[in-house]
Amino acid sequence: MSARAPLTTEDWGLAVTGYDPEWTGQLESLFALSNGCLGWRGTLDEEPSSVGDTCHLAGLFDRFPLSYAEPSYGYPRVGQALVGGPDGALIRLRIDGEEFALRTGTVLAHEQRLDFRAGTLRRETTWESPAGARIRVSSERLVSLTERGIAAVRYEVEVLDSPHEVTLESELAVSSSEQPNEDGLQPIAALVPLSVAADHGGGRISHVTAHSGIAVAAAVHHEVDGEARMRARADGTDILTTITATLQPGRPLTLLKFVGYATGESTDARELIAASRADLEQVRALGWDGLVRAQREALDTFWSRADVRVDGAPWLQQSIRFALLHVFQAAALVDEHPPPAKGLTGSGYQGHTFWDLDSFVTPVLALLHPSAAASALRWRHRTLPHALERAAELGLAGASFPWRTIDGRESSGYWPASTAAFHINADIADAALRYIWATGDREFEGREAVELLVQTARLWASLARTDRDGGTHLDGVTGPDEYSALDDDNLYTNLMAQQNLLAAARLSDAHADQAARLGVTREEQTRWRRLARTMALPFDAELQVHQQSAGFTQRSRWDFERMSADDYPLMQHHPYVQLYRHQVAKQADLVLALMRRPDVFTPAERARDFAYYEAITVRDSSLSAASQAVLAAEVGQLTLAADYVREVAMMDLEDLHHDTKNGIHLAAAAGLWTALAAGFGGLRLREGAVEFSPRLPPGIDRLCLSLVIRGRMLTLEIRDEEAVYRLSAGEPIELLHHGRQLKVGADPVAAAIPPLAEPGPRPQQPRHRPAGLRDRD
Amino acid sequence: MSARAPLTTEDWGLAVTGYDPEWTGQLESLFALSNGCLGWRGTLDEEPSSVGDTCHLAGLFDRFPLSYAEPSYGYPRVGQALVGGPDGALIRLRIDGEEFALRTGTVLAHEQRLDFRAGTLRRETTWESPAGARIRVSSERLVSLTERGIAAVRYEVEVLDSPHEVTLESELAVSSSEQPNEDGLQPIAALVPLSVAADHGGGRISHVTAHSGIAVAAAVHHEVDGEARMRARADGTDILTTITATLQPGRPLTLLKFVGYATGESTDARELIAASRADLEQVRALGWDGLVRAQREALDTFWSRADVRVDGAPWLQQSIRFALLHVFQAAALVDEHPPPAKGLTGSGYQGHTFWDLDSFVTPVLALLHPSAAASALRWRHRTLPHALERAAELGLAGASFPWRTIDGRESSGYWPASTAAFHINADIADAALRYIWATGDREFEGREAVELLVQTARLWASLARTDRDGGTHLDGVTGPDEYSALDDDNLYTNLMAQQNLLAAARLSDAHADQAARLGVTREEQTRWRRLARTMALPFDAELQVHQQSAGFTQRSRWDFERMSADDYPLMQHHPYVQLYRHQVAKQADLVLALMRRPDVFTPAERARDFAYYEAITVRDSSLSAASQAVLAAEVGQLTLAADYVREVAMMDLEDLHHDTKNGIHLAAAAGLWTALAAGFGGLRLREGAVEFSPRLPPGIDRLCLSLVIRGRMLTLEIRDEEAVYRLSAGEPIELLHHGRQLKVGADPVAAAIPPLAEPGPRPQQPRHRPAGLRDRD
Repeated sequence: MSARAPLTTEDWGLAVTGYDPEWTGQLESLFALSNGCLGWRGTLDEEPSSVGDTCHLAGLFDRFPLSYAEPSYGYPRVGQALVGGPDGALIRLRIDGEEFALRTGTVLAHEQRLDFRAGTLRRETTWESPAGARIRVSSERLVSLTERGIAAVRYEVEVLDSPHEVTLESELAVSSSEQPNEDGLQPIAALVPLSVAADHGGGRISHVTAHSGIAVAAAVHHEVDGEARMRARADGTDILTTITATLQPGRPLTLLKFVGYATGESTDARELIAASRADLEQVRALGWDGLVRAQREALDTFWSRADVRVDGAPWLQQSIRFALLHVFQAAALVDEHPPPAKGLTGSGYQGHTFWDLDSFVTPVLALLHPSAAASALRWRHRTLPHALERAAELGLAGASFPWRTIDGRESSGYWPASTAAFHINADIADAALRYIWATGDREFEGREAVELLVQTARLWASLARTDRDGGTHLDGVTGPDEYSALDDDNLYTNLMAQQNLLAAARLSDAHADQAARLGVTREEQTRWRRLARTMALPFDAELQVHQQSAGFTQRSRWDFERMSADDYPLMQHHPYVQLYRHQVAKQADLVLALMRRPDVFTPAERARDFAYYEAITVRDSSLSAASQAVLAAEVGQLTLAADYVREVAMMDLEDLHHDTKNGIHLAAAAGLWTALAAGFGGLRLREGAVEFSPRLPPGIDRLCLSLVIRGRMLTLEIRDEEAVYRLSAGEPIELLHHGRQLKVGADPVAAAIPPLAEPGPRPQQPRHRPAGLRDRD
Repeated sequence: MSARAPLTTEDWGLAVTGYDPEWTGQLESLFALSNGCLGWRGTLDEEPSSVGDTCHLAGLFDRFPLSYAEPSYGYPRVGQALVGGPDGALIRLRIDGEEFALRTGTVLAHEQRLDFRAGTLRRETTWESPAGARIRVSSERLVSLTERGIAAVRYEVEVLDSPHEVTLESELAVSSSEQPNEDGLQPIAALVPLSVAADHGGGRISHVTAHSGIAVAAAVHHEVDGEARMRARADGTDILTTITATLQPGRPLTLLKFVGYATGESTDARELIAASRADLEQVRALGWDGLVRAQREALDTFWSRADVRVDGAPWLQQSIRFALLHVFQAAALVDEHPPPAKGLTGSGYQGHTFWDLDSFVTPVLALLHPSAAASALRWRHRTLPHALERAAELGLAGASFPWRTIDGRESSGYWPASTAAFHINADIADAALRYIWATGDREFEGREAVELLVQTARLWASLARTDRDGGTHLDGVTGPDEYSALDDDNLYTNLMAQQNLLAAARLSDAHADQAARLGVTREEQTRWRRLARTMALPFDAELQVHQQSAGFTQRSRWDFERMSADDYPLMQHHPYVQLYRHQVAKQADLVLALMRRPDVFTPAERARDFAYYEAITVRDSSLSAASQAVLAAEVGQLTLAADYVREVAMMDLEDLHHDTKNGIHLAAAAGLWTALAAGFGGLRLREGAVEFSPRLPPGIDRLCLSLVIRGRMLTLEIRDEEAVYRLSAGEPIELLHHGRQLKVGADPVAAAIPPLAEPGPRPQQPRHRPAGLRDRD
């Protein structure tokens, strides 16, 4: 367990004051900058990342053999992992030949600050060298939110007491480290050099991945003020630019460093080099100030439609903006490649994309940054050929999307928790629908969405079993909860498949040409509708609760009383053979069904189901608490909801899962917004309708949420007894407020919040797993 | 697919005439000699094994890391694999400097013959060299059935037309080949040499395994007739003994080669060398003739109590004796280490022991060679500490025996089909009970059996769930059928656990001291009895059949009509995610329950259940057909039973599973006897009672079975309308004949066989998987 950094609480930034090498892993992730194509971890300028690589590029991955103690048919034989790109952040510093490093000498002052509005990471350090030289080092860096492959640094050194000889060694370098897979057994080869060429102010390098044939080109250019001497040269396969100057107190040395990246098929390596150079030329013309200005404008635009304002809870004000910044950074310019589970902030999960994207991230992007949601869905659509092939390999019809992947091929080595988790297919279909409901994008609906819906519906139709009484069942599937597997009639899966089947029938009716092209027949549509109508929904009549899967509520209860705090996360201390046969949930599963399909459950059912599953859900997954917050709010357990919101908010800021060093939890970041919007805002979206049931929890005085619905920029301000809806752009919109129809046009509309019915006792969580879990307590 | 050798059909032997290198893999396994401690594959003297190693020694194994694409808690990290021992069979031959090899020159005549009574493998080859020299080579070899570490060869060369210079190079050598694991990815280091020393007639070598620290010492001694010159020397770490002679026609050269082996802890390497030499000295004193005599005596004894005579079906006469010889060979002198699934006839399954041993082999040994059954069970008992440790690791009480192992530690890399197959624990308990019922061994019962029963009962008690109505359930377990996994209430498992619990209560009552030492309380016994009494037995009331597991008969049916012959075995062409959710059985599961617990089912239930599961059982496992034969006979489907008997009989002789080259299927060999004894003999054993319901199928005129029950040697002769019981040794015995009490003493007792009730239509098997499956057809 690594120590966690003491962070400031402020409205528009996140900063750490002081230095401890133990904090660096977490801080590098929190302070990471990214634009969805390029990510730089929040390293100190003078050091490479303490955890893996500093630089990540979407789609820059390599392949490696997956090995199994007992292999079997259909197991993926090839793994995938993101490979670190050339590190352009590194600027080593020497004072009179002595290396500047926070671990040596004396740190007189040190601060790193991520500015949520500027989109830059600033640092300032005052340091005394072992030989007694006192200097101030400051820097500001950005990964451009407007230029896909561009990062830049403004680096400044000032001597504080007397003149000193200062040397900067600015690198563009590929680390030679090999990346082990999760098992630590399969090393992945580093990048193979292709070319290197220095020029006056820097140079360019290119590499290719050893097995997947993906090339990456990077170019660097430096500018310094007059008195410094600069020399760039190829150092092996790296570019090393050396700047030397004799500095006087009061006359700092300023270095501007521009780095451009391009990746693509290795056959296009030459073009990539040209592209990275051209981008860099363009950015040099813009200059540092131009880049900074463009960065702020991009964020101004984002915040104008996505900001959340919170009164009365400074920790929440900061954490929601921190979360939204990371969601935006992960997807801002996303194009051909999907955001990984950690965005581009670290190499956790080998840079894979999971159902997190479709279930937790894309639906938020659809309301805050719709073009990125469209890109994420188009990526899924582009990988349909792999999903069709995978389904055929499994003996199924339609599409079976991969559980974890970079390029669209299945890359999971444990099928009971992956291949069998067919729900990802309905999650992708659901994300497509939510995107359409949020945006009204009819072009996407008629093209990509119909095909995604039809092919996933075909999968469900081939998985479905009709029983003697005509009921439809999905046997041997794994739901969201990874502490169960291979169950029959997982309620979440069945409900999501039901929605998938109905929507496929509806959309293929609405887009007959596309449907005809896909070979959809009237009979097929009829079958989809019949399967949906007869879908089994397991219910325990004695306990009067729904079952996570058939028979779930009859399983042995997990003996939580015998657990110590050290037993968590359970999967690290107990075998799946035990977890699977007990009533214990790693994460929201049935609760996620309650959230995704509000139309199916009565309020009383919802309250009983929620309380039942609260008692057995241990939240060993970071994907859980946000959904529990939403449901807690919906059943009127507002204090509990607020506790969960706090847990989601602190996931990375307090490193609750002890793995923030591997990257931030992107789905939890998006989940925090969902917890506020769907939880306290009561936002529910469906075909042609948007519904709010706002209600503040204790401890929050005011909450303002902004979002984009079908082109309208809508703001909801929630106070204790009243909500105000404002439209800042777009046509008037009809919406539901606590079930009552409202029309919001140019003028704000205020609506009273009805009093809360007595919600009953607060549902209990398992021992050692209280809601709002804070490891520091 | 390798070609299969044309084999003779004869009563007391198995021979091949002619030579084709394609046959060698299968023939080496069929002709393998073994005594349970030492095995030599049936190689040609001049060649090493074409598949892996020639020599296997029980307990000579090494460890290697098991790797997983996605590792998790409780996964075994260390694999185990049998390592080939020093090859002492190899004798290379040169004629005038030309190498003798069947692949070169002209084979004028060639025969290999395994003699079931002599216990030797003979070969005779007449060959013309490329240069035109004609010679006859003959040999006879044995692996001693009386001396644990001893093998010997009598090798003879004769020139047929003119004098020739003949050189024999006789080796005692360790091959340097590495053994890959099943995945082909984890090479296992070969033996590491410790010492080598030559003497006049041979020499001795010792090695140690690289990781497990097991030493193996081997010594060799040669004797030749007068005119040859012999020289032994160390050749690297091997012993190479060269014999040269100028041979005249009519004056053959005869070489006797004696090899002695000893294995044990590497710390005792010096003692092992001494032991292997001492054994060899003793055997040299005995001489070749003495060894041959002792071998025949050992087999005479075995056949006198275990022989099966068949009239009217020569193929069955041969195959049952072939099977019994291999069962005897696998266990004759078995001591500290268990027989692997392939005996010591090949390195299939890495030399692991599975539940096959306890369910299929030990119960047969208990009736034919009881001391070996006792050894196998004592081995299980000695590994109890590992099983207790494993259960604790899994969070369970009592003992959890490994699915596959050499040393008693779990070595399986896919837990849904191994760790979750808890039935192995009841199988071991069942084997202990059957051994006691067969032998009346009260010492074993009071010592090892009580402990085995109590610790396995504790496992069941900790796995059991009691439902709201008081029923006892075992959730999330895998039964014998490997095309299902992680089911609730697998009927076989539940019934075997029930027996286990009751027997533990009974035996711990009967052996109070031992029970007290194990901490068994009255409350614990009461709980065991209650759990057994309330055990759930899933039954489909609509179909009126039992369910393999809860809900099994509601699963989708496998679409057998869409399968081609090439789809089999299904696990090589279809993923488990599909197999598990369908009604398709790899092997007898519910049918095995019908066989093991005849007390539970009515005849009508048995007939319905059998027919139902026949239609979905594909027999992709070699463990299946024998049990199906037994049940077919029991429900009166005698022709079907005979077809299954044929399938079991031809498993290796016709290489039905295309893997006989990796070793013979020991459990199928034992299963053939069970198919005859329990099938056509109707043998059922229980506490204090033995029951026969003999009935011949069409195509067999007479069947005589011998077995040992509680010290009595009993022979059952079955004819069409009558059975005759004879006691050749021991006190008179009471038994049941078709439900009627008989007492058999000194005089044979004849009893009429009641007419067979009309059994109804013959149950159908899946398409392409007819009973009696013969790949050649």
